Amino acid sequence: MDLNNLIGIIAGIITTSALVPQAVRIYKTKSARDISLTMFVFFAIGIALWLFYGILIQAIPVITANSVSLLLILLIIIMKLRYG
Amino acid sequence: MDLNNLIGIIAGIITTSALVPQAVRIYKTKSARDISLTMFVFFAIGIALWLFYGILIQAIPVITANSVSLLLILLIIIMKLRYG
Repeated sequence: MDLNNLIGIIAGIITTSALVPQAVRIYKTKSARDISLTMFVFFAIGIALWLFYGILIQAIPVITANSVSLLLILLIIIMKLRYG
Repeated sequence: MDLNNLIGIIAGIITTSALVPQAVRIYKTKSARDISLTMFVFFAIGIALWLFYGILIQAIPVITANSVSLLLILLIIIMKLRYG
C-alpha cells in the first residue's frame, strides 16, 4: 500500500469514527434537540456524492470511508426524527 | 473542468455547507449540550488528514473542501467549549 492510500485510510477511519460517539450520545440520552437535522441531511447527500467521486477517481480510501459514514449518518437522522 | 472534479466540488460544497446550520444553531441558542465534543475533535483531526491526503494526490476538490470544513469545525469546537 502506498503512502497516499495509508494517509487516506487513516483519515477515513478517524472521520468515520467521529460519527460513532455522536450516535451513541443520542441513543443514550434519547435527546437530539441541539442536533441540526439540516446539517445531517445535507451531510448525507454530500457524503453520497463523495462516494460517487471516490468511485470515479478510483480512490479506495474515499470509497470505503464514505460508505461507512453514510450508514452512520442515516442512523443519526433516524434517531433525530424519532427523539426530536 | 472534468466530470470527476465537478462531482468532487459539488460534494465538497454540500458537506462543507452542512456545517454552517450547525454552527448557526449553536450560536443562536447558545447551547451545545447535545453536541459531542469527542465527535468534533476527532472530526478536526480526520479532516486535517483528508486535507493532507488531498495535497498528496493533488485533488483540488479534496483540498478546498477540507480546508473550509476544518475552519468551520474549529469554530464549532470553540463554541462548544464556551457554551457547554
